[in-house]
Amino acid sequence: ASTLALGERQQEEEKKKVQAGSDGGAAAGGGGNGNKSIVSYWGVEPAKVTKEDGSEWRWNCFRPWEAYKADLSIDLSKHHAPVTFLDKVAYWTVKALRFPTDLFFQRRYGWRAMMLETVAAVPGMVGGMLLHCKSLRRFEHSGGWIKALLEEAENERMHLMTFMEVSQPRWYERALVFAVQGVFFNAYFLTYLISPKLAHRIVGYLEEEAIHSYTEFLKELDKGTIENVPAPAIAVDYWRLPKNSTLRDVVMVVRADEAHHRDVNHFASDIHYQGHELKEAPAPIGYH
Amino acid sequence: ASTLALGERQQEEEKKKVQAGSDGGAAAGGGGNGNKSIVSYWGVEPAKVTKEDGSEWRWNCFRPWEAYKADLSIDLSKHHAPVTFLDKVAYWTVKALRFPTDLFFQRRYGWRAMMLETVAAVPGMVGGMLLHCKSLRRFEHSGGWIKALLEEAENERMHLMTFMEVSQPRWYERALVFAVQGVFFNAYFLTYLISPKLAHRIVGYLEEEAIHSYTEFLKELDKGTIENVPAPAIAVDYWRLPKNSTLRDVVMVVRADEAHHRDVNHFASDIHYQGHELKEAPAPIGYH
Ligand SMILES: [Fe+2]
Ligand SMILES: [Fe+2]
Ligand SMILES: [Fe+2]
Ligand SMILES: [Fe+2]
Repeated sequence: ASTLALGERQQEEEKKKVQAGSDGGAAAGGGGNGNKSIVSYWGVEPAKVTKEDGSEWRWNCFRPWEAYKADLSIDLSKHHAPVTFLDKVAYWTVKALRFPTDLFFQRRYGWRAMMLETVAAVPGMVGGMLLHCKSLRRFEHSGGWIKALLEEAENERMHLMTFMEVSQPRWYERALVFAVQGVFFNAYFLTYLISPKLAHRIVGYLEEEAIHSYTEFLKELDKGTIENVPAPAIAVDYWRLPKNSTLRDVVMVVRADEAHHRDVNHFASDIHYQGHELKEAPAPIGYH
Repeated sequence: ASTLALGERQQEEEKKKVQAGSDGGAAAGGGGNGNKSIVSYWGVEPAKVTKEDGSEWRWNCFRPWEAYKADLSIDLSKHHAPVTFLDKVAYWTVKALRFPTDLFFQRRYGWRAMMLETVAAVPGMVGGMLLHCKSLRRFEHSGGWIKALLEEAENERMHLMTFMEVSQPRWYERALVFAVQGVFFNAYFLTYLISPKLAHRIVGYLEEEAIHSYTEFLKELDKGTIENVPAPAIAVDYWRLPKNSTLRDVVMVVRADEAHHRDVNHFASDIHYQGHELKEAPAPIGYH
């Protein structure tokens, strides 16, 4: 009986809805890039967000409370010595990937950063998603690791949003990224399903390589072979940088981010190595 | 040459690492459930988190800044009248799913809530993940929709963490959830790939049904056929409820959450219907 009654109630509401629509009571969501507006009964209006100085917040892809000051004091030289068999698999996988990558990009570090950040944002999302599904399936708390890994993915995506202001991708580069993402997403997904400890170890080593590449990037900037252009506006807002910051400052904070990802992923792998599950150790949330 | 030099430098660091390890300089992460400790060179120690009153924060699966007061004033009766063909597909898909679900669960709403929240947390994660990959692949900003959908997924997971304090799943229920998640995840993934507007519309209707079910849950609580037990501690902290809250209060705030998800998903579908992409309209972030 309740199903029938619901059916009738809905018919009434539908009428109300149509009325609301024709009354012009629909709210318009401001377009992201201009004046395009969306008319919707649902009129979920985004909150007006302002910067600390009261000026309007320019970005929809991230909000002021996600911005932070990078911790530049982090030890950049830390390294996990590969000990076990899986460690060595992870280490040599990453080293083997490095060789063709170096050949391909050579010393064009701005372009390299843009291209590789499209890949760097995948593992956090895959790991977070798999842990989320596991938490649901097993009726278990996550220990904060879902959040921590998703935060890593969002942080890497912000690296991409930053570097794409400096280098623009051409059509065949887009095609390459498309193909690489397809392969890498699935490869990482399978690796994480089979062995999360191997997956996190691989990411740990990838981050060690990223630190190395960004250090090389800095050297080229200092030599002047890459022009030290002003920092993109999005980077200034995301890392709370001074207004007159340059690309060099951006590479510094990005490198510090990579060092934090290195720590988190090697730590996650260590937890698994010691026979524990991630949820048993509280995740480092907001570890920048 | 640089690769070789790097190799040598690493060997040195490996030695340093082993030393650091044997020095006992390793940090121990506090175990989630007791005294299990993880020894790690990486020693990423979680920040000490306290509640507003200064007492220790008990939860790792969410943090104080994710807690909020639910907006109970939201209109529960809003409904999207199915107009287009795809709308009708979405509407009747959900109605068709409702019938066996009602038969299966009957009036055991606590159990129903626990079981269905394992499914409810899937669409936000799938949508967020797909938009994330799209943002990377296309070098595009997300308009905040990745975050908004991931927030929905986390919110639904908190519903599950709450209801599993009230009803405990038995082994065959776990098996059922396992199977249903496998089917639903893939079905929703494919639907979102083929037609995000259909996918969001389906979720919109699912949320309308969720509101209906939670209203029935409240009726049973008021009739006394379901015992109005004290609210689980995790719910009190997550929705900032008064200390002496009951299950009824929890169902009220959960129902308000579902109404917010309904708005966001119907709105997302409307954006697609009007020929726009989600990124063109700023996402409702922190819309509770
Ligand atoms: Fe990065
Ligand atoms: Fe990274
Ligand atoms: Fe829910
Ligand atoms: Fe919901």
